[in-house]
Order: sequence, then C-alpha cells, then structure tokens
Amino acid sequence: MTDTTVPSPTIETDALVIGAGPVGLFQVFELGLLGVSAQVVDALPHVGGQCVELYADKPIYDVPGLPVCSGRELVERLQQQIRPFAPGLHLGHEVSRLQREANGRWLAETGAGLRFVAKTVFIAAGVGAFQPKRLRLDGAEALQGRQLHYQPDTLAADAQQVLIIGGEEAAVQAAVELAGAGRAASVTLLHRRDAFKAPAAWLARLQTLRDGDAVNVAVGQPLALRLSADGALQGLDILDADAQTRTVPATQLLVRQGLSPRLGPIADWGLAMERKLLTVDTARFETSEPGIHAVGDINTYPGKRKLLVSGFHEATLAAFAAAERVFPGQPIHLQYTTTSPKLHERLGVSPPARD
Amino acid sequence: MTDTTVPSPTIETDALVIGAGPVGLFQVFELGLLGVSAQVVDALPHVGGQCVELYADKPIYDVPGLPVCSGRELVERLQQQIRPFAPGLHLGHEVSRLQREANGRWLAETGAGLRFVAKTVFIAAGVGAFQPKRLRLDGAEALQGRQLHYQPDTLAADAQQVLIIGGEEAAVQAAVELAGAGRAASVTLLHRRDAFKAPAAWLARLQTLRDGDAVNVAVGQPLALRLSADGALQGLDILDADAQTRTVPATQLLVRQGLSPRLGPIADWGLAMERKLLTVDTARFETSEPGIHAVGDINTYPGKRKLLVSGFHEATLAAFAAAERVFPGQPIHLQYTTTSPKLHERLGVSPPARD
Ligand SMILES: Cc1cc2nc3c(=O)[nH]c(=O)nc-3n(C[C@H](O)[C@H](O)[C@H](O)COP(=O)(O)OP(=O)(O)OC[C@H]3O[C@@H](n4cnc5c(N)ncnc54)[C@H](O)[C@@H]3O)c2cc1C
Ligand SMILES: Cc1cc2nc3c(=O)[nH]c(=O)nc-3n(C[C@H](O)[C@H](O)[C@H](O)COP(=O)(O)OP(=O)(O)OC[C@H]3O[C@@H](n4cnc5c(N)ncnc54)[C@H](O)[C@@H]3O)c2cc1C
Repeated sequence: MTDTTVPSPTIETDALVIGAGPVGLFQVFELGLLGVSAQVVDALPHVGGQCVELYADKPIYDVPGLPVCSGRELVERLQQQIRPFAPGLHLGHEVSRLQREANGRWLAETGAGLRFVAKTVFIAAGVGAFQPKRLRLDGAEALQGRQLHYQPDTLAADAQQVLIIGGEEAAVQAAVELAGAGRAASVTLLHRRDAFKAPAAWLARLQTLRDGDAVNVAVGQPLALRLSADGALQGLDILDADAQTRTVPATQLLVRQGLSPRLGPIADWGLAMERKLLTVDTARFETSEPGIHAVGDINTYPGKRKLLVSGFHEATLAAFAAAERVFPGQPIHLQYTTTSPKLHERLGVSPPARD
Repeated sequence: MTDTTVPSPTIETDALVIGAGPVGLFQVFELGLLGVSAQVVDALPHVGGQCVELYADKPIYDVPGLPVCSGRELVERLQQQIRPFAPGLHLGHEVSRLQREANGRWLAETGAGLRFVAKTVFIAAGVGAFQPKRLRLDGAEALQGRQLHYQPDTLAADAQQVLIIGGEEAAVQAAVELAGAGRAASVTLLHRRDAFKAPAAWLARLQTLRDGDAVNVAVGQPLALRLSADGALQGLDILDADAQTRTVPATQLLVRQGLSPRLGPIADWGLAMERKLLTVDTARFETSEPGIHAVGDINTYPGKRKLLVSGFHEATLAAFAAAERVFPGQPIHLQYTTTSPKLHERLGVSPPARD
C-alpha cells in the first residue's frame, strides 16, 4: 500500500514465506532444518490455506504415509511438525508489495503496513489470497472497520442493530453466536432466500433463536446503504422477495458472503508468469528473480501437477537453494533427520537410542 | 540369467516396479489412482528397502505430516495406503535383465527365472539390491542352496551339524531359533570375536543356550571349506584366536554376515547413467529409454536430494507420464482424492458425507 502514514515496524528475516497453506508451512520446516529462520504471512485469519478453507473436514487419501486424513488434520500435523522452528506468524495480512532493495534484499509490505526485509522470499500463495467477497455498494469502503465488517471479531455489537449478510455456515454461525451473547439490540440475518447452508446443529440453533425472536431473517438483496447526514450507517435498503424495496435498520453490518481466492498483487511484482502462475526451474524452484522462490499451487514448470506431494518436494529443494544464499560460501550438505546430531539439535529431540 | 532350463511363468502387467522400498511402494499407489496395475519385485525377502533394512526402529522427522515415525512405521503406513491396489508382490527376486521386446513392451527377468512383460517400468532400486555378503571361499558357490545358505528358511536343520557365521542380530537370532527348535544335531556360531551385537533379549537367550551347551561359539575366521570326495560339506577350516588352524565340523552352513546394497545388473541395461545413478528428466522422471522411469534414490537430475519427500513426488509425476502410455490417446486429468468419485471407487472408499 502506498501513502500509509502510520509508522510501520520493519521485521528482518532470513526468509519470508508468503502464504501459510500446507506448502508454506512445510517450507518453514525445511528451512528450519537447514538453520534458516522464517516469517510467515497469510491473508487469512488462520493457517492451512485451501485445506482448511475449502475442505477442512473432508478426507485426503494421497499424502504419502497418511492413508487418510482430513484437510484440518493435515494442517494440524504440519503445525506440530514446524513447532521446533516457531516462525513469526502474521495472519490476516496480505502482502501487497515486493521489491528489491539496494543491498539485494527484498522489501515486502502488507496492506496494513507491516514491513519485512528478507534475504530470500518464498511465494507459497496457492490459488491466491483468500479474501472475503466484498459488499459492492456506494459508501461501503468508507464504513469498513467502523460500521461494516468482514470478520466478527472487529465488530462491536453492544446495544447495536446488527445486520449479517450471507447464507452459509459463516453467516449462520455469526448470527447464532451474536444472538446467543445477547448484547446486541437486534440481530438480523439477510439472505436472498429463506434457506441456509450450514451443519445441522447450527441450523437447529438458528431455528430456536428465530422462534424466540432473538434472530430475524430478512429475505432479499442489498440495494443501497442508508447513511445519516454525517455519514453514519442507519440501515440497508433491500429488494425483497416480492420485488419491493424496503429498509432494514442496521448500525453494524457484518458481511459473510464467503471467500474467494484472488491472485491479487502478485501479478504486479515483475515476476515471469504463465497463465497466472509463476514460472520456476525444477532444481531451485526459483522465479525469474534470483532469491524469490515459488512453491506449491502458485508455480508452474513442465509436468507440474497441483498436488500436496509436489508442493512438499518443491519446498524442500527451494530450501536448499535458499540456504546457499543465506550462508554464502558454506556447502549445504544433505543430512538425514534420522541420524544427524545437528538436525536433532535443531529439532529439539534426543538422539535415538542405539541398540 | 541366461541358459535357464526351468520353464518360467511370464507375468503380463501394465507396470513393473523394480524395488519395494518406500518409493516403489508409493509408486504402486500413484499408479493405482490412475488405474494402472502393477507388479513389484524386490531382492529382499521383505518390503521397505533402506527404511526397514537400515533404520527400522529409528525415527524419521521430515516426512510431511508425520512429525515423527520410525522406518518400519512409515513402511507399514505405505503398505496400508496401497492396499486398495493389491499389487503382485515378488520378494526375494532380483531383476537381472531388462530388454525391449519387438512390440515395444519390456521384458524383465529375475535371477530365478521369473519373467515379466510390462508396458512401463519403474526402477525404484534405491542404492541397489540388498544382497547378503557372500562367503568368499573356493567351492562355496557349488554348495549354495544345498549345504550353504544365506537365509534360514532354505536350511534343513534336522539332525544336521549347523554352523552359523556372523556376529550381529541376524546371526544371533538364527542361532537362538535353531537351537531352540532342538532338531539340529549341533548348532555352532562362528564370529571373529566372542562379542555379539544384538538386542539384549537375544543376547540373554544366546547366553542361556550356551550355558546349556545347546549353542557352541567358535571364535575365528573362515579359511577353507572341507569337502568329502564327492563334494559334500563336512566342515569349515578356521583360523582361531591363537592363529591356529582348526576344523569346525558342519554339514549345513548359514552365512549371516549382513547385507550390502549392490547396484548390480542395472548398470548393464543400457540406460544413461551419471555416477552410478540413472539420469532422468524432471517432468516424467523417465530414463534415456522411453517407458522406463527411475524414481527415488536411484535417479539423478539437477537439484536432486536423496530424500523420501522427493521420491514421492517423482513417483507421482512418473505415474502420470506412464498412464499416458498405458492409455494412449486418453487425456489424463488431475483429480483430487478428496472429491473425485472415480478415485473413491478405485480407493474403495465411500464419498465423504456432505454437510
Ligand atoms: C476441494 C479440494 C480438494 C483437494 N484434494 C486434494 C487431494 O486429495 N490431494 C492433494 O494432493 N491435493 C488436493 N487439493 C489441492 C491442495 O489443497 C493444494 O495443492 C494445496 O492446498 C496447495 O497448497 P499451497 O500451500 O500451495 O496453497 P494454498 O493452500 O492455496 O495456500 C495459499 C495461502 O497463501 C495465502 N496468500 C496468497 N496470496 C497471499 C498474499 N499476497 N499475502 C498473504 N497471503 C497470501 C492464501 O490466503 C492461502 O492461505 C485439493 C484442493 C481442493 C480445493
Ligand atoms: C540411516 C538412514 C537414515 C535416513 N534418514 C532419512 C530421513 O530422515 N529422511 C529422508 O527423507 N530420508 C532418509 N533416508 C533416505 C531414505 O531412506 C531413502 O531416500 C529411501 O529409502 C529411498 O527409497 P527408495 O525406495 O528409492 O530406495 P530403497 O529404500 O533403497 O529401496 C530400494 C529397493 O530396491 C531393491 N532393489 C534394488 N535393485 C533391485 C533389483 N535389481 N531387483 C530387485 N530389487 C532391487 C532393494 O533391495 C531395495 O529394497 C535415510 C537413509 C538411511 C540409510
């Protein structure tokens, strides 16, 4: 982001990993084994990328050595695996800018003004940064963070008329939780149909709250924001099921229309691309800029398949290449985690007992 | 092997996997997902390659999603994973010959005369075929299989004077088990020192049997085989600890001096090699012969690291390349195990419940 006036902390690091999906997480592990410390940034408020965002509870069968595990379980296992290397983790931040510094390092900046200076960069951005689908109405941007929110945790519900927009689990759950907390003046859920998609337990709780008038449901589509003379939100005009316009009162808006991945700013970083993917070599998984690697679903090379097993391999070779840059002149030998005392030290494990 | 006079069964298969190490096993999985059936051959009497042979009980820390697991556990997990694809498994067979047939298929033959005709071949031979270290004495080869053995299961101990050569677990265990069975006339264990390397439980049992004269220990080094006029084994001349030559009577020899990997016949198959490794491309992991892939520790390409995580990736891309050959003209699409009904059918799992 340009023209930010807030002073930004600058974090120096050997390696910056952009994306905390499964491949970004394993990248931290392979870097850690080689003694390279990392900072990790993800636009989402949680780690795990597609595995958690798109199929948390569904089974994966083709991770070698894991005959079956859910997306969420895989990510929990990877989190446990990288624990010895405790990376700096910056969630809810999209890296928007990446440029070379005079000293050959890379400067990365997030939308909110976080700054990193890194010797090597790993773009593990998958299908892009998952972003909440925006409410596209005049004046919406000006309200964001005050009276319009995309995450429940920034919303101040006390004594407010809360209007939640959305028809799936994230919207239903927010309505149930806000009504359950009982601090809002009112909780209304707006969706284009009176039919919601969420696990049965959430739907049952929603029904109970509707029966007790703790949650109202409005059916219709957002048309316009209603603002006071000084620009404060008072309500939302909607087009209802009978094609009539009416106003739903609201002093706080929570937009939960789902997430969609967006390649976003990566396309502007001057890196060679092919069909929206970063082209890399297969020895170092390096982009057209030396020192910037791309691993996982975001990269492409002859034979590429967008699979976990491939992302893990790519992260491994990229780590070796980066270690050469971080420790110039030092040979980077392959060592086995099974037998290397140095790796045992880095992993914080005792050497295996000899028989 | 040439000039074999035993008629050999010929097994036809889409894919022949040479080597049942971790990468050969996962190769079967990736082939199975794509509908390609496989036969697997390994020189060892068990699957798992180096993981089981060299570090069965030691921990591995860098398999993605498995924060820690032993070599044996990894192999058990892989065996469970490939169960839906039940490959033909041929253990204790070394593939010695590989040559192209007129019809473009590959003919492979094992030392014992097993024959395979395959559309595609995967060399997953690791550091080579593990072979028992041989007893290098005149006349040894002529006795092999009758009075000289490298595996206990081919030995007929009944009323025989059994001499076991070796000082580690495999030798100690064989001595304990043979003496315990009580069918041999005598059991002698020969080693260059009176000190054995084996788990404490085996050593304790050995001591008990020695105390009861059920096992004799001879200390010394093999010098020469003692044969009768008609070539039958009668004993082994050894050089004992006092530099004296003496004869240990023996009608059955069991040589348990450990295993060592041997690249062996692979070097003679006319494939392009670099420093004893098969050179491959990184899109199809194919050798210089189209249709023959090399995966895991046996291959080399720019950036190669001999790691499990890389072998698994190589097996995955090699499977896609081979599927194109097995199903010519059919596009081979990437499908996710999580969501594809066709893959669920092949895996024999029910589709995940929808929420
Ligand atoms: C339904 C489904 C089923 C699947 N099943 C399988 C399967 O069975 N087997 C298999 O191998 N694969 C499967 N996959 C594919 C697998 O999930 C992906 O290969 C894997 O998630 C890729 O990991 P990644 O880390 O490269 O990217 P992602 O998981 O996409 O993670 C990338 C992360 O980067 C973040 N990010 C992007 N840009 C930025 C930025 N500028 N700043 C900050 N953060 C950013 C994103 O928010 C995201 O969290 C499946 C995918 C889907 C959708
Ligand atoms: C002590 C030790 C610790 C290790 N620790 C780690 C670790 O922590 N992490 C990691 O990633 N890797 C580690 N490795 C490396 C890892 O074990 C290898 O990368 C892996 O075993 C390679 O698998 P593979 O299937 O390619 O070959 P192998 O495991 O070598 O298996 C090859 C198989 O092919 C068979 N074979 C060969 N030629 C023939 C033939 N002509 N006919 C029939 N069969 C044949 C052999 O008998 C063998 O069973 C370690 C290795 C060792 C020795």
